[in-house]
Amino acid sequence: MSENQAYDIIVVGASAAGLRAAARARRLLSNAKILVIDEDTYISYAACGMPYYISGDIENADKLRETAYGIVRDPEYFRTAKGLEVIIDTRVERIDRDARKIYCHSIKTGEDSEYSYDKLVLAMGASPVMLPMVPKDSKRITTLKTLHDAIDLRKSLERGEIKKVGIVGGGFIGCELAESFGALWGVDVVLIEAASHILSNILDTEMASAVEEYIKSEGVKLYTDCPLQEITESEEGVTIKTSQGAFEVDRAVIAVGVRPNGKLAEECGLKLGKWGGIVVDDKMATSDPNIFAAGDCVEMKHMISGKPLQLPLGSLANRQGRVVGSNLGGGDERFRPVVGSAAAKIFDMNVASTGLTEVAARNGGFDAGCVWGTLTDKPDYYPESQNVFLKLVYDKGSGRLLGLQGYSKGEVVKRVDVFAALLKHNGHLEDLLDMEFAYAPPYAPAVDPLFSLGAMARNAMLEGIDQVRPDTPLGDSIGVDVRQPYEVESNQLSELDCQNIPLEELREKCEELCKDRPLLAICEKGVRSSESVRILKEKGFTDVKYLGGGMHMKPAG
Amino acid sequence: MSENQAYDIIVVGASAAGLRAAARARRLLSNAKILVIDEDTYISYAACGMPYYISGDIENADKLRETAYGIVRDPEYFRTAKGLEVIIDTRVERIDRDARKIYCHSIKTGEDSEYSYDKLVLAMGASPVMLPMVPKDSKRITTLKTLHDAIDLRKSLERGEIKKVGIVGGGFIGCELAESFGALWGVDVVLIEAASHILSNILDTEMASAVEEYIKSEGVKLYTDCPLQEITESEEGVTIKTSQGAFEVDRAVIAVGVRPNGKLAEECGLKLGKWGGIVVDDKMATSDPNIFAAGDCVEMKHMISGKPLQLPLGSLANRQGRVVGSNLGGGDERFRPVVGSAAAKIFDMNVASTGLTEVAARNGGFDAGCVWGTLTDKPDYYPESQNVFLKLVYDKGSGRLLGLQGYSKGEVVKRVDVFAALLKHNGHLEDLLDMEFAYAPPYAPAVDPLFSLGAMARNAMLEGIDQVRPDTPLGDSIGVDVRQPYEVESNQLSELDCQNIPLEELREKCEELCKDRPLLAICEKGVRSSESVRILKEKGFTDVKYLGGGMHMKPAG
Repeated sequence: MSENQAYDIIVVGASAAGLRAAARARRLLSNAKILVIDEDTYISYAACGMPYYISGDIENADKLRETAYGIVRDPEYFRTAKGLEVIIDTRVERIDRDARKIYCHSIKTGEDSEYSYDKLVLAMGASPVMLPMVPKDSKRITTLKTLHDAIDLRKSLERGEIKKVGIVGGGFIGCELAESFGALWGVDVVLIEAASHILSNILDTEMASAVEEYIKSEGVKLYTDCPLQEITESEEGVTIKTSQGAFEVDRAVIAVGVRPNGKLAEECGLKLGKWGGIVVDDKMATSDPNIFAAGDCVEMKHMISGKPLQLPLGSLANRQGRVVGSNLGGGDERFRPVVGSAAAKIFDMNVASTGLTEVAARNGGFDAGCVWGTLTDKPDYYPESQNVFLKLVYDKGSGRLLGLQGYSKGEVVKRVDVFAALLKHNGHLEDLLDMEFAYAPPYAPAVDPLFSLGAMARNAMLEGIDQVRPDTPLGDSIGVDVRQPYEVESNQLSELDCQNIPLEELREKCEELCKDRPLLAICEKGVRSSESVRILKEKGFTDVKYLGGGMHMKPAG
Repeated sequence: MSENQAYDIIVVGASAAGLRAAARARRLLSNAKILVIDEDTYISYAACGMPYYISGDIENADKLRETAYGIVRDPEYFRTAKGLEVIIDTRVERIDRDARKIYCHSIKTGEDSEYSYDKLVLAMGASPVMLPMVPKDSKRITTLKTLHDAIDLRKSLERGEIKKVGIVGGGFIGCELAESFGALWGVDVVLIEAASHILSNILDTEMASAVEEYIKSEGVKLYTDCPLQEITESEEGVTIKTSQGAFEVDRAVIAVGVRPNGKLAEECGLKLGKWGGIVVDDKMATSDPNIFAAGDCVEMKHMISGKPLQLPLGSLANRQGRVVGSNLGGGDERFRPVVGSAAAKIFDMNVASTGLTEVAARNGGFDAGCVWGTLTDKPDYYPESQNVFLKLVYDKGSGRLLGLQGYSKGEVVKRVDVFAALLKHNGHLEDLLDMEFAYAPPYAPAVDPLFSLGAMARNAMLEGIDQVRPDTPLGDSIGVDVRQPYEVESNQLSELDCQNIPLEELREKCEELCKDRPLLAICEKGVRSSESVRILKEKGFTDVKYLGGGMHMKPAG
């Protein structure tokens, strides 16, 4: 065992959170001796970029480890550019909090070593969850945890060894990988998800179902409600057994979520939270005032639900790292509760969300109201205009904003980001009506989708102009299809009694409609049908609503 | 004269604000008799889309007047779909406030008519400013006011009558038109601007100068500091005389701003503001409680400067229209002061801004601090990543956010929109560090540009890590170029004594530097040079700053 060395600050984990904390502390404490230790050989790489390296969009794995000016971020770089000592290939095996010491083991040399610290930062990240039925150390059944995993998959693709892949888990990584394998390499993709729908952390069922249809249309064999029963490896490949049958593939990737690497913290008696993340206060200090923690291994608090959550995002890890570094350097920075923004590009579909889903809002005890909108990201007349499909969740009593989720081949992420800024400031529906967007036809319609959504919700809350959910079975109502005849012809609504009276004729012809049954106004996007509800109410129809989001958001089938 | 007709609500002006107000009031007051009057034949068209129609991006002018489902928004459409009576080709000539009557004149038939109102809404919009030296009723020297003007220009382009065009005014419309004429039609464009730089409402000089260089690189002959002296029309074309010489062109478009159409209001004794806009309260009521006003003809208040301003944007006109309509319908909606977001696409460059420029902030009495950042809209490694050039203006004492301006071939508008949401909620620098962006490589780097800017400003405010302006003459300082040798070679900084010590070698080699003169650290984007300032301060150099935005933001020359 090498002799004990003393450091002012030791950071465990040389990824976003740890290195940011170390570099920030170093900047504020010019004389501090700072050590960063990581068990991997590759450090400070952009793990979020791995799907794009696998897909071939990024040529070389080194790209994920380089600065903008082409220097690889290895220990030498951190020594010279950042003034940090970085040790790689070394596992921290134990923390002695009383002695303020850590005990390490070199994976390469087998040597043991110990270091003493004044302050310790834990930034060990998270690891993919491994299902119990998955064989260990399989070559063909893997997760996507490290850059080594990504390089291995990419090499297999380049060698043509993967004709068919099974992806277990329809979260962000699973969906992104479906594109990575499918789009450039032409690999047959089977994607299975145990839950009733994909991306369930950020989308409610009816929103996810549109994304699912889209993914299928891109050639992915997607199965939801499809838990894994057994997965086995043979010489020829992998057999994935599920409740919906068995799939033979060449490789399988397990992507069913990640779990915080909290073991080291737990073993030394630090407090872990419900989901296994290290519990920290708003200065990112653990239950031991000499130990801070940051990144995917900590538990965060949701600003709206107030509940603890895990949110493994490089963006948050970076922010937390800065907070830790500032506080180590004598500052007083806080990491506030999060609203949980997330996004993914899946083939050409942008999917994004912030705040609570409807399900999460109800679970959190909110009396959640929802409106759905099919809107456009740019003016209708602008050549590149695309539909944006949004769902707004708000508190019915107060009008407080709770969440936004959406998908679009166009610009949906901007709306989610603006909405997140409002959530952070405890925004209400009227704030959506007060937003200013930098307006010009290439960027937004004069009436932005967020304004329209806010207006729809207020119209429901204050004026009783109510939507029905896009996935409501329409059986009992009589439909009033207020579209133009040419639209009706190209996309017929067959499942309910339906009469076509274009909006422009409704004032004159509405007497033709039956007043004894509930009426449901329907149009392409939900705008004309909303107008129709007002007209029909004026004319004495009392039980009349409109289909939220219009035909565009109605799930197929 | 036709007989007097009585209406509950009369709206003057059938554009965004007026029609929105009328439609909203109609929805809330089912029995109200509502009349909308406009002097044009074309109503409810998307004036902001005209540059894209002129350019050919939009095939047909009707596109600008159609609903998403292909119905032209003419009086018949508003009658049937919206329940509004709309009279076109009719000028309102006088308002009698005591009698609550308006007097009209039909441009087509010459007939006069009068109508009495219970409530009146003024939404006459704004008109292009005509310079005194411009000949009236010229066929070759025009403004871009109405759809007729746009159709006329497009026809001339299609007939090949315009080989060379002169645009007077380098605001949004002037710059957009430069693209409209140049990009598709290959017309030679001369763009002249009287002020020292273009887009001066939204960009400070040093930011505008980069956009100017870009516009020139696209082939536009751009002259700033170039007031119009004389402009004359002949059989052959137009002669534009300026302080920088005379230009012979086939057509000239005057785009030097717009002025509110406030004459009708002024003549009936309503209060107008400093810039000629109708003064309204936050319910959009004028000084006469029976008269509301909305859209480009009203004066707004800037939320940050507290000053009155004109901001002719379709987005705001729509919002104001809704407020008027709601209040007419018995509601209590408010239009709050604005932060003034704006954007334009100029060729392939996106330019956007919100809040105050540095100049406006100083004029408003703020002790404005600024930081400049060359950042990326997506991670460096992501294939479509683009630089985003931003300038943040904040209050030095309190850290309150005052404004953001930027340009990029990538995503800059989103950052401006999120920033605007923060401005609306009285945001401070620490809010930039607390923002959550829906993070994934196709949308943003893990550390968003807004976070980086906020950190730079806080580093300056709290830690003395100071920038110098990108356009500072560098003469007195010694430069420390901390880039890699390959970068220095490809883009040399010649104007000051400069030593190249890459960041990675700076800790060891900084003793080579002279301590007697101020030091200026320089790199490509301003990130490494910011680090260098810390290193050099640690090493005992006291007078050391870095070049804001790096080489990328340094004006050419």
